[in-house]
Parts: sequence; C-alpha cells; structure tokens
Amino acid sequence: MNKFSLAVLVMLVFTFVSQAQKHEQNLRTIFDEALTNGQSYPMLKYLSLSIGHRLSGSPSAAAAVEYTRQQMESMGFDRVYLQEVMVPHWVRGNTEVGRIVGAKSFGSKDMKVTALGNSVGTGSAGLLAEVIEVQSLEALESLGKKNVEGKIVFFNRPLDPKHIHTGHAYGGAGDQRVNGPSVAAKYGAVAVVVRSLTLALDDVPHTGTLIYDPEAPKIPAVAISTIGANELSKTLKANKGLKFYIETHCEMLPDVLSYNVIGELTGSELPNEYIVVGGHLDSWDVGDGSHDDGAGCVQAIEAVRIFKATGIRPKRTLRAVMFMNEENGLRGGKEYARVAKEKGEKHVAALESDSGGFTPRGFGIRSTDEVLTKIQSWSDLLAPYDLRKLVKGYGGADINPMEDQGTVLIGLMPDSQRYFDYHHTSEDTFDKVNKRELELGAASMAALIYLIDQKGL
Amino acid sequence: MNKFSLAVLVMLVFTFVSQAQKHEQNLRTIFDEALTNGQSYPMLKYLSLSIGHRLSGSPSAAAAVEYTRQQMESMGFDRVYLQEVMVPHWVRGNTEVGRIVGAKSFGSKDMKVTALGNSVGTGSAGLLAEVIEVQSLEALESLGKKNVEGKIVFFNRPLDPKHIHTGHAYGGAGDQRVNGPSVAAKYGAVAVVVRSLTLALDDVPHTGTLIYDPEAPKIPAVAISTIGANELSKTLKANKGLKFYIETHCEMLPDVLSYNVIGELTGSELPNEYIVVGGHLDSWDVGDGSHDDGAGCVQAIEAVRIFKATGIRPKRTLRAVMFMNEENGLRGGKEYARVAKEKGEKHVAALESDSGGFTPRGFGIRSTDEVLTKIQSWSDLLAPYDLRKLVKGYGGADINPMEDQGTVLIGLMPDSQRYFDYHHTSEDTFDKVNKRELELGAASMAALIYLIDQKGL
Repeated sequence: MNKFSLAVLVMLVFTFVSQAQKHEQNLRTIFDEALTNGQSYPMLKYLSLSIGHRLSGSPSAAAAVEYTRQQMESMGFDRVYLQEVMVPHWVRGNTEVGRIVGAKSFGSKDMKVTALGNSVGTGSAGLLAEVIEVQSLEALESLGKKNVEGKIVFFNRPLDPKHIHTGHAYGGAGDQRVNGPSVAAKYGAVAVVVRSLTLALDDVPHTGTLIYDPEAPKIPAVAISTIGANELSKTLKANKGLKFYIETHCEMLPDVLSYNVIGELTGSELPNEYIVVGGHLDSWDVGDGSHDDGAGCVQAIEAVRIFKATGIRPKRTLRAVMFMNEENGLRGGKEYARVAKEKGEKHVAALESDSGGFTPRGFGIRSTDEVLTKIQSWSDLLAPYDLRKLVKGYGGADINPMEDQGTVLIGLMPDSQRYFDYHHTSEDTFDKVNKRELELGAASMAALIYLIDQKGL
Repeated sequence: MNKFSLAVLVMLVFTFVSQAQKHEQNLRTIFDEALTNGQSYPMLKYLSLSIGHRLSGSPSAAAAVEYTRQQMESMGFDRVYLQEVMVPHWVRGNTEVGRIVGAKSFGSKDMKVTALGNSVGTGSAGLLAEVIEVQSLEALESLGKKNVEGKIVFFNRPLDPKHIHTGHAYGGAGDQRVNGPSVAAKYGAVAVVVRSLTLALDDVPHTGTLIYDPEAPKIPAVAISTIGANELSKTLKANKGLKFYIETHCEMLPDVLSYNVIGELTGSELPNEYIVVGGHLDSWDVGDGSHDDGAGCVQAIEAVRIFKATGIRPKRTLRAVMFMNEENGLRGGKEYARVAKEKGEKHVAALESDSGGFTPRGFGIRSTDEVLTKIQSWSDLLAPYDLRKLVKGYGGADINPMEDQGTVLIGLMPDSQRYFDYHHTSEDTFDKVNKRELELGAASMAALIYLIDQKGL
C-alpha cells in the first residue's frame, strides 16, 4: 500500500468512526431531550383530560384537530396545515341494555354490553330473541340457516393466551367482531353478541368497529364483557331456549368534514423526500383514548419537536401526521395516501405508533428483506435504549395505504401485555399512561426517523 | 469420507437438530403452562391480599413462611424445608410526622414523610431543628461541622431521568438514603430528611433501609415525598433559618427467629448440583409488597412447579428459595450462602427475581465472559419470548453472597419503568401487578433454568 492509499484509508476510517460517533451522540441527545424536557405527557394530559374521547365527526374530534394544530404551530414547525377528509359520523345514543331473560335459577339479569362501532341500533322497542353460542364463523356456517334464523348469535371464542404478543391473540379472535354480524345476518340472525376482545377477565365491555357486508342485512351488534360472556355461556348450558334482550340507540348520521392534521420540519438537503411519523387522532367514544391513540399522536408531535428543540436538522422533510378516523373507517389514512400519490410526493418511510404508550421494545417493519436487514444493522445504535426487537411487522392501519407507493412502513412496538386490558373501553384513560414509558416511545420514534433520515433506506 | 464416518456425521447432525428441537418444544411447553394454567397470580393474590406486608420479624412474615411452605408441599415438590435465620426486628410505630415550621408565607405545614427502615425514632418529644439542604454526601462534607451541627440535613438530589434503566437512576441516588444519616451524624446533624428515591413526582414517601455506621451516632431519618421535597426546597430558599419538625416512634427490637423457605425438585442425573431460583419473602411494612418482592417469590415457586406440572425432568436439583430479610439486613441471603458453602453444595447458578413483576426483557448475568457468551448463544431460543436482553448484570441481593463459590448469578430483568413508582411505598399493591406480565416472568425464569440445566454452564 502506498502512502497516498494509506492516507485515503485513514481518512475513510476516521470519517466512518466520526459519523458513527455523531449518530451515537445524536441519539443520546434525542433521548435526553425526551426524558428531561419532554412535551408528550402534558400534551396527552390535555388531549385526554381537557378534550376527552374524540370519535370521528364529534365536536371533541374537532377540538383535537384544533389543539394539535395549535401545538405544532406554537412549537414553530415550518408548516402546519389541515388536510380535508369526510368521515363517518356514528353516534352511540344514550341507553345500552343487554339482558339475560328466562334463566331458570335467576330469571332476568342485566349484563354489561356496549354497541359495536358502526352498528345499527334496536331502537326503543329493543330486541328479544333466543341465543345460540358459537366459537367461530365456521361453526356458525355449519349450523346453517335452520338453526340460526330469528336468533341472536353469541360469538364466544376467547383470545388465545399462549401468544406472547397480545396483538396476535387479538388478531386471532377479531373476525368475530369485524365480520361476525354480517355472517350471522346472512344466516338469518337478528342480532349479535360478541365476547370482548381482551385477555383480561373483567366486567368491562370492549367496543370496536364492525364492517357490514353490503350483501347482508344490517343487524344490531353488541360486545359483552368477558365475565359476562362466561356467565352467559354457563347460563345457556343450563337453560335450553334462553333468550337475550338488547336495546341500543346507535345510528349512522351523514358524513362530516374533518381533517388530518399535519406538521412539517423542512429537510435541509432533500426537502422533497418525506418521512412520516404519526398516530390517529380519533378514538372510541368511551374512556378518553389515551393509549388508543392519544399516545401515538403526542409521540408523533414530540418526535418532530425533538429535532427542532435539539437543533438536529433533518436532511429530509419530517411530517408529523395525526390521522383522522382510524377506528371506524380509515378515511384519514386512505386520503393521506391518495393525496401523496396524486402529488407524486416521495415517502421514504412512515412510522406509526398505534399500540399504546407503553415501554417501547422495538419496531415492526413492513419492507423488503433488504431494507429490513439494513434497519437491523443499526441494532448496536438502538440497543442502549432497549430497542432490541427489529422484526418483520405489520406497519400501521393509517400508513398501510401507502404501501403501493414503495414507502417503508413501520410500527412502533411497545410492550403489548396491558394494551388489550384497556383497548376500546372506558378504562383507556390518562391515569393508565406512565410518563416515562410515553416519553421513551416518542424518543424511540425520533431515533428511528433520525437514522432513516441520515442513512437512507 | 468413508461410509462409517458419514454415518456418524449424519447421526451427530441428527442428534444436534433433534436436541435443538426438543429444547424449542420444551420452552414452548413451559410458556404454555405458565400462560394457561399459571399459579403465580393466585399465589401472589393470597400473599398480598390475605397476608399483606411482611417485614422481617413480623407475624405476617411468619405467615408468609408458612404459606409458601404449604404451597410447595401441596405442589408435590420432592423436598420442602425451612432454613433457620435470625433476623432484625424493626418496628415503625404508629405516628410519623414531618412538618415545616416557621415559613413566612404559611407558618407550619405537615408533609408526607415515612421513617427509613432501621432508623431510630425521635419519641414523643419529637425533634425540631433548622434544616439545611444538600445535593450529595460530598456537598455535606464540604460544608463541615460548623454549618451542620445541630441541624437537620435534607438530602435532595433527584434521580437522573436520563438513565433508560431506572435501576441506574436509583443506584445513582441511593447513597443519600443508605449512608446519608451516618455521614450527617458525623458532622453533628441531629436528623436527616431524604428525598424519596423515585422518578415519579407524587406525594408518596418511599421508605427503604439505612445503614448506620457503628462509628457515628444513630440519628433519626425520614424520607419525604418528591412533591414534598420540592416544596421544602422552595420554602427553604424563601426562609432563612427555616425549621423542620420530625416525630417518629420506630425502634429496633431484639432479633427474631425466622426462616428461608426452600423447595426442591431432585435432579435425575446430577442431584448434587443445584440451580437456585428465588425471590425475597420479606417486604417493607407499607403497601403489600406485591412487586417487591412477592412477585419474585411466587415466580420462583411457579418456575419449579412448571417442571413438575409439565413432566420436564431436570438433570440437576432445582431449588426455589424464598429468602428472608433482604430489605433490612440480608440475613437470609447470607445464611443461605454460608450453609451452602459449609455443606459443600455445588451451586451451578442462582437466578433471582427482585425487580418487580413486570414484563420480562431478559437477564442480567454476573459471570465470566465465557459464561456470558454461552448464555448469549441461546438468544435464538429465547427471542420468541421477547427475552432479548442478555447482558452483564448485577445478579441479586440475596444470591450475590454466593459469588465466592463460583456460582453464576443472574437477575431477571423485567421492564423497569414503573418499578420505582411503587417501590417501598403504600402503592406497592396487588392491583399494580398484571397477570400476564407476572406469568411471563415466571415462565422466563423456568426457561432459563431449563437451558442451564440441560446445557450446563
């Protein structure tokens, strides 16, 4: 090796080492900012306690749009704007009754139920019918019309506790809630009762969306708590022909104009390349939606704020996006992707936090194997922050519509154990969020988009 | 390669693959048992709600000894026995008062305080003196006797939130509580007030042990909540010569006979080699000690029960040990190590859970680099259970006395973010424990001791 080659080599090694040190230091700066001067927790406090739950089309959803817009404005983001999107406007109504009727031992008994999102209501007359229990859509289909017609179908397959990640348990039971009502309706059922989608055994019913098949009649559907489901099942075994009464007053009103809320920090070198970090601003109309997904929204804002506050200038444009209507329509996510495509915006990556504000464990990555391997090669930089899980994953409901644009889709993976204890219930409230866990999630998002921005994908 | 060599090679590869598959299947069996038929949660419920807190020497500590002994008996462990150990018997007394006295703006105000464990009391007369605030033992020493004599020293250095693992933040502030009282006494202080060792900002004081230096006078010491510490600090700044009143009635009674509780499953091949899995049975006398360390005790029992229940026969003898007196003396841990040494028992490894019943993230390993590397080589087997953190670590207070016997010492590392929110307070109660998180910890312990047993160290 001649002297010139040696000098070049030394310089290259030096550059490489100093780049690595720079990244290491910047990640440390990002976490220090989040943990000592973090804004995610006070933002979530406002969103949860002052605004509260914010179902699409509701006045509080509008308040949340205005609040997050103002927050990003006040933080001095380079550009803050609203993206119009028409959203469904479903309302629950006041009274929700679920009642076992005609049990030999106790007669009638009210059970904790809650209407599924987008469900039609029974109206004041209510609906009384015989109940049959099934464990799956397939079991229902094999019963056939003669056994189902005129009855209430009770879907009672529990989540499988053997899954380590609770999301897999949820995914394995979700068809009962999402598709169960229309499948039952095709066989002549008059209503559906679904076991709440949670691993917890408690008396809190979990709402969540159903999707009506346009080919089937729309029948009312409610979720029953897991304790209630066990009791109903037991009572059914002891009482042939047992009836159940449902009364709900929910209805779907005309669509309403709402917005995705977007805040940008303009890239210094590649301003026309975008990295999205987001969560969804709407929540169910129970609890205050702190974990689902107030947490993701304030973390997204915080992730971008951290760049601003620490003076770490991104090369690419960073966009914090508060998507509207994830819960019962996904209109915001679809509209964002449509507009991005229409404008030909190049989205390098999109990172969503929609699994609760718990301690982050890593990221689920929806990409080519090559990109996955590249992100995994950053594990030494991320391990000091206990971000050790860098695996193939799902992305996120709001960002997945961007998949056909070649965008790498990433989901923050917080610890999953408690998420479905609170998910879609009156228990999803601010007091269930730990300040540091929320802050660590925001910092983790900032750290990953920092590395993506610096190193490309 | 001749035919015979090829045959041997094929056989070896086959054996290796089938061994790997066996381990994979057995780990799955272990987790399935814990998650579908786990006993840790109901055991903790009894320990926490029916017995409650169990400070060394207390009647409830004796009840906990008997309860865990009976549990292991009823589970059919091969041998269950008590190991005698004399423990300190400190009692808190009924009244605990901390009061700011003589503030210009508000006069007097009661603050939430709690005596540090092993502290002497003030008695009914109480103790009123001028307060000085310091941030560290060094700062106190540099003030010198003339500024300290006759005063109450207020140690107010907060935990550093920049640490990702909260244990490091705790460790960085702990000298104020453990050694602060005696250091202050050497400079003539009459009492000590210590900022609670937590990252949370709340009004709950955290107790915990102090260690009196035999060379210094014993002076009373209390912890003040973090909100209280901030208020006291602010009031001090505005009031030169501000006084503080302390009244505590704690005292150290004569030592009491107590026990380590030990349950064994005899090894099938190497019964004279031991693998210990443990937690400590004593707790502070506030809350019910669910996370610290009821969780560790029931997880240790459960880890051994899982072997019994699933029919996975260990080669070596597995010992579940409930150590007594970790909190204010460590007598149980020391005695266990002494007896093991005296009997010449070969302890291959000891695994302690004493960091709360939160989702496990891995293990902290105190061993040679060679052993650490060996355990890290099992990462593919452990990653499906999200046990991704296999790092050098501390071990555990109760097992560390075995270090000079060549025992590999391992601490379960649960998620650390919420631990010090509850640690040593009235808030460390059963409702703060998530069933699945507890179960996953127990299964993780069983999984690691399974691999150690099968593969050796």
